[in-house]
Amino acid sequence: MERARAGDLRSVGRLISLVEDESPLLREAMAHLAPYAGRARIIGITGSPGVGKSTSTNALVTELRGRGQRVGVLAVDPSSPFSGGALLGDRVRMGDHALDKDVFIRSMASRGHLGGLAWSTPQAMRVLDAAGYDVVIIETVGVGQSEVEIAGLADTTIVLLAPGMGDGIQAAKAGILEIGDLYVINKADREGASTVRRDLRGALALSQRPEDAWKPPILMTTAQNGEGVAEVAQAIDDHHAWLEAHGELTRRRTRRARDEIEAIALTGLRKRWSGLSEHTELDDLAERVARGETDPWAAAEILLSTHLD
Amino acid sequence: MERARAGDLRSVGRLISLVEDESPLLREAMAHLAPYAGRARIIGITGSPGVGKSTSTNALVTELRGRGQRVGVLAVDPSSPFSGGALLGDRVRMGDHALDKDVFIRSMASRGHLGGLAWSTPQAMRVLDAAGYDVVIIETVGVGQSEVEIAGLADTTIVLLAPGMGDGIQAAKAGILEIGDLYVINKADREGASTVRRDLRGALALSQRPEDAWKPPILMTTAQNGEGVAEVAQAIDDHHAWLEAHGELTRRRTRRARDEIEAIALTGLRKRWSGLSEHTELDDLAERVARGETDPWAAAEILLSTHLD
Repeated sequence: MERARAGDLRSVGRLISLVEDESPLLREAMAHLAPYAGRARIIGITGSPGVGKSTSTNALVTELRGRGQRVGVLAVDPSSPFSGGALLGDRVRMGDHALDKDVFIRSMASRGHLGGLAWSTPQAMRVLDAAGYDVVIIETVGVGQSEVEIAGLADTTIVLLAPGMGDGIQAAKAGILEIGDLYVINKADREGASTVRRDLRGALALSQRPEDAWKPPILMTTAQNGEGVAEVAQAIDDHHAWLEAHGELTRRRTRRARDEIEAIALTGLRKRWSGLSEHTELDDLAERVARGETDPWAAAEILLSTHLD
Repeated sequence: MERARAGDLRSVGRLISLVEDESPLLREAMAHLAPYAGRARIIGITGSPGVGKSTSTNALVTELRGRGQRVGVLAVDPSSPFSGGALLGDRVRMGDHALDKDVFIRSMASRGHLGGLAWSTPQAMRVLDAAGYDVVIIETVGVGQSEVEIAGLADTTIVLLAPGMGDGIQAAKAGILEIGDLYVINKADREGASTVRRDLRGALALSQRPEDAWKPPILMTTAQNGEGVAEVAQAIDDHHAWLEAHGELTRRRTRRARDEIEAIALTGLRKRWSGLSEHTELDDLAERVARGETDPWAAAEILLSTHLD
């Protein structure tokens, strides 16, 4: 842990592996890291396949490195059964930053994981935060519930769009209108970028946010050559200042901690119910429900009354 | 409930609404329905967008109706924030079966729902099962974890593929090789169907299933004109007979009941922790974690020790 905090990438990677492996050592490691956590800014980047998420992440990392910040990246793929640990692959993917020891990147698969994204991502974030990274970027493809979950984890959520992705904003899922703190239209040099902006502006105007809420700006980038990326970094700073001024940063981080505690507690309970013995009380109740002798609600009540005071 | 069991579609719909609304009446309704549940066959149908899921479901319903079976369909969209209840829209979608009172169909959104798919789908299945439908079809688009979840709910899981969907089996996500009880290549009249079959056969041969496990057949259909659909219905029967002969049906249904009990219990616990008061113990712990005074693991232990004996 000391080496990780001193910036040794291999040690950071090993700590993340404790998360991925659900190692019994994790509990102790987290207790040691706790006092150092809570300083990093957490940025979520989400968007449909093909909008240029990796390129945008890369460009943002370049910008943040130029400002002297240490950056950790977690690339979460909610549909992949393949887990991280492929450090070489991850370094190659990072292109410009492959040799920069102040950039840590890790691909994480959530599928098959106990609790998926909700369990492993916040804990990996916590490791990077405590290891002293100034910014932690969580990048995820926007499918299913993943982008909503990411928005729940990040201080600032960036929704990426791009022209030529079907019917513009119509193609974008309704959920994105609610979760973005910044909207970035990438590939702004391509035809149709201004149409995407116009449609998005219209859709955002229709979506109901409270009067005193943050008004998410729409930015244009060409991540490939870095155009517009400094403005994105500036908008992240603006949003961060707004969060702090409105007490929203503490609220978001407290909510995130609450979700994290709950996920760990529920996982613990589930292990307890499933048990290690051959035939547990839950098994017995399940058999009775399957035979139609009782219903799942009554069974759940019995289960809770056995384990709760 | 009596009218629902007598085949009144509106009453069945109202019971499903209790599930969607997380109504306090649900608990009592389930207790009354329990003795009648456990008879329906549960068929899961999953596949990428564009493979022809609705058309295939429709064709299968026609086939099953021809055999005199009552059929319930739950179309679950894990990415949609829009919930069901649009009975008219659902009937229109069913085309041929719009006027058939022995076919019930309902679109369900899982997003935003407490526990998502895992909570609402099994309970809606249970309602249809108890209402006397012989077959319940759960249709879902294969994104994220949804197809794995569907496979956990169904007696028989059908994975749909189609030619011209990108790189054939390469485009198919790795997970589908593990979950299918039947593989159906739809749009078999189109170019490339036999290539998809060849690739799938190769991939399945490589995927490791135990020696004594069910060997999933690959079938070809043109759902649009019903070709090959009778063979799919036959394969479902074969698989069902295999499940019964190997004690696997009881095992699957018990596991399903266990998941259902657990989901209800965890939801109950979560409500308890979140509480109705302004500031709960969980809030307090979350604030301490956010301030770095403790770590989420220690907080989870405190939470559990307060609520568990």
